[in-house]
Amino acid sequence: MGTVKKLINGIESVVPDTLRGLAAAHPGLRVDEENRIVYRAAGPRPGKVGLVSGGGAGHEPLHTGFVGYGMLDAACPGEVFTSPVPYQMIEATTAVHGGAGVLHIVKNYTGDVLNFQMTAELSAEENIEVAAVLVDDDVAVHNSIYTAGRRGTGATVFVEKIAGAMAETGAPLHEVVRVAEEVNARSRSFGIGLSSCTTPSVGKPTFDLGDTEIELGIGIHGEPGRTRSTMRPARDLAWIAMDALHEDLPLSGDTLVMVNGMGGTPLIELYIVFAEVVDYLAEKGARAARSLVGNYTTSLDMQGFSITTCRLDDQLTRLWDFPVETPALRWGR
Amino acid sequence: MGTVKKLINGIESVVPDTLRGLAAAHPGLRVDEENRIVYRAAGPRPGKVGLVSGGGAGHEPLHTGFVGYGMLDAACPGEVFTSPVPYQMIEATTAVHGGAGVLHIVKNYTGDVLNFQMTAELSAEENIEVAAVLVDDDVAVHNSIYTAGRRGTGATVFVEKIAGAMAETGAPLHEVVRVAEEVNARSRSFGIGLSSCTTPSVGKPTFDLGDTEIELGIGIHGEPGRTRSTMRPARDLAWIAMDALHEDLPLSGDTLVMVNGMGGTPLIELYIVFAEVVDYLAEKGARAARSLVGNYTTSLDMQGFSITTCRLDDQLTRLWDFPVETPALRWGR
Repeated sequence: MGTVKKLINGIESVVPDTLRGLAAAHPGLRVDEENRIVYRAAGPRPGKVGLVSGGGAGHEPLHTGFVGYGMLDAACPGEVFTSPVPYQMIEATTAVHGGAGVLHIVKNYTGDVLNFQMTAELSAEENIEVAAVLVDDDVAVHNSIYTAGRRGTGATVFVEKIAGAMAETGAPLHEVVRVAEEVNARSRSFGIGLSSCTTPSVGKPTFDLGDTEIELGIGIHGEPGRTRSTMRPARDLAWIAMDALHEDLPLSGDTLVMVNGMGGTPLIELYIVFAEVVDYLAEKGARAARSLVGNYTTSLDMQGFSITTCRLDDQLTRLWDFPVETPALRWGR
Repeated sequence: MGTVKKLINGIESVVPDTLRGLAAAHPGLRVDEENRIVYRAAGPRPGKVGLVSGGGAGHEPLHTGFVGYGMLDAACPGEVFTSPVPYQMIEATTAVHGGAGVLHIVKNYTGDVLNFQMTAELSAEENIEVAAVLVDDDVAVHNSIYTAGRRGTGATVFVEKIAGAMAETGAPLHEVVRVAEEVNARSRSFGIGLSSCTTPSVGKPTFDLGDTEIELGIGIHGEPGRTRSTMRPARDLAWIAMDALHEDLPLSGDTLVMVNGMGGTPLIELYIVFAEVVDYLAEKGARAARSLVGNYTTSLDMQGFSITTCRLDDQLTRLWDFPVETPALRWGR
């Protein structure tokens, strides 16, 4: 495989240039380019629990595209596929603290977990009450090159949306934590890669896939999944993913479903997958009561998709429907 | 180049399967799967001008993702990269007619133009007043394999949004036509392809590009642009595109800017391009007063981007800001 063309100015400037673009495109955001933190322009609201997330860049719109009313108060991007660092996160935590404590939303990767833990310790020294929710929804593998336990992927979007809504209603920290943990507990994800991704610093694909090869259970950094397999129709791929989810946590009732593109897959194909997901759910007596179809938790230019499901109840549905105003999710306001 | 993997069930079912997915994902839409028409679920509003657009599939979210309050009343997808047909469009035109006439928004490709003209003639027989606006914003080439004159690309999104808002305010057909034509007259686009796209019926890339080759002025069906060139930093590519726009219609003042992904390019790279566009505008004494950064007028899985600019005035800005509620654009409501 040859060189992969990327719209960048240089490897070091990928993240700063992205932040410049975000700041210019979204007047509702305030971007601290020096510390690499994206905030709501409106600043912290006294008495509201602050929500901070972060993780390696390359998964956009996660997390920077989910900053705004009803979701995050701040997002801290690291370098591509690299955890942000404690100095960034303590800065963000302090800045969004409105007196009611701060929730850290952490995807389960070793680097992220360690850096968020260190940030929590620093926050305690500053007398800021911090709690963390660990997202670990990916059923494909237990333990991986980056993770002890399951990886955190698409459910992060659900946790950020629903915990963000809960915080917006003025709920105290322990209630925001509870709902965040509940969303994670009810959510499962499985991804299928049709191609590798290419990190800018490497310049060529992370791994090779043959013309008809695919990776079942792919991670969001190009890390391996369960097994290699051969390409087949969208219906079969959707059913493989849904079987993996259903096996881990039986699907039933009203379900929040995300069919997520990995970055290089066109929207038309994601809708085709979603149609199959709906058929699958019907067969299990479940239904996609709420859904997202698009690029929400990407892996640079990777082709493929992931499916995330979350069993809804009345409260979670209300919180999902709660108004939101961020670059990547916007409704009801 | 090898086989390209696509999330489809078969070549014939690409469009029907996409429509099934759209219908399931968006309760605000009503999908006539037999006639391949996507409507607002709420149906036509008496006294409101109806807006119908359509064109080949493969450019999603264009046009089906722009059906809803404040934009289109109906969209008619053809097969991939193939015009819809008059029986579809007369059905849609009749269905959305609320007594105030119907505007057809037509991208300038020979097949689309002919089929929309035939539909207008059929509409006249049914005593429905129909007007058409032709979108021809792409400055890259005059005449092409599919087009007499300039091609219609990204400005279609601007025309659909602004004319849709105008219609929503209750303006009569001639005023909706006037504002649609004005948006087109003020808009220019230029695209750069880093890769080919692959139509499902062909199964391999439409053209070959070397490891460091790019196509300047690429069309949205993989048709050639002005010239081949070599890959270079995002800043240089953004400036090449902006120079082409500025040369055709000098940039100044408040500008509506779209940095559009061609389908296979990750969001992070589009923000990097947008940051450069903002610098370019500043140098010309212009500014991106409103913007979109994302996948809006795609070309299947093509990698690359296009930039569309439209000089704003107070009325156009108000109409851009008007509430909209569609799968792909949603704000203020």
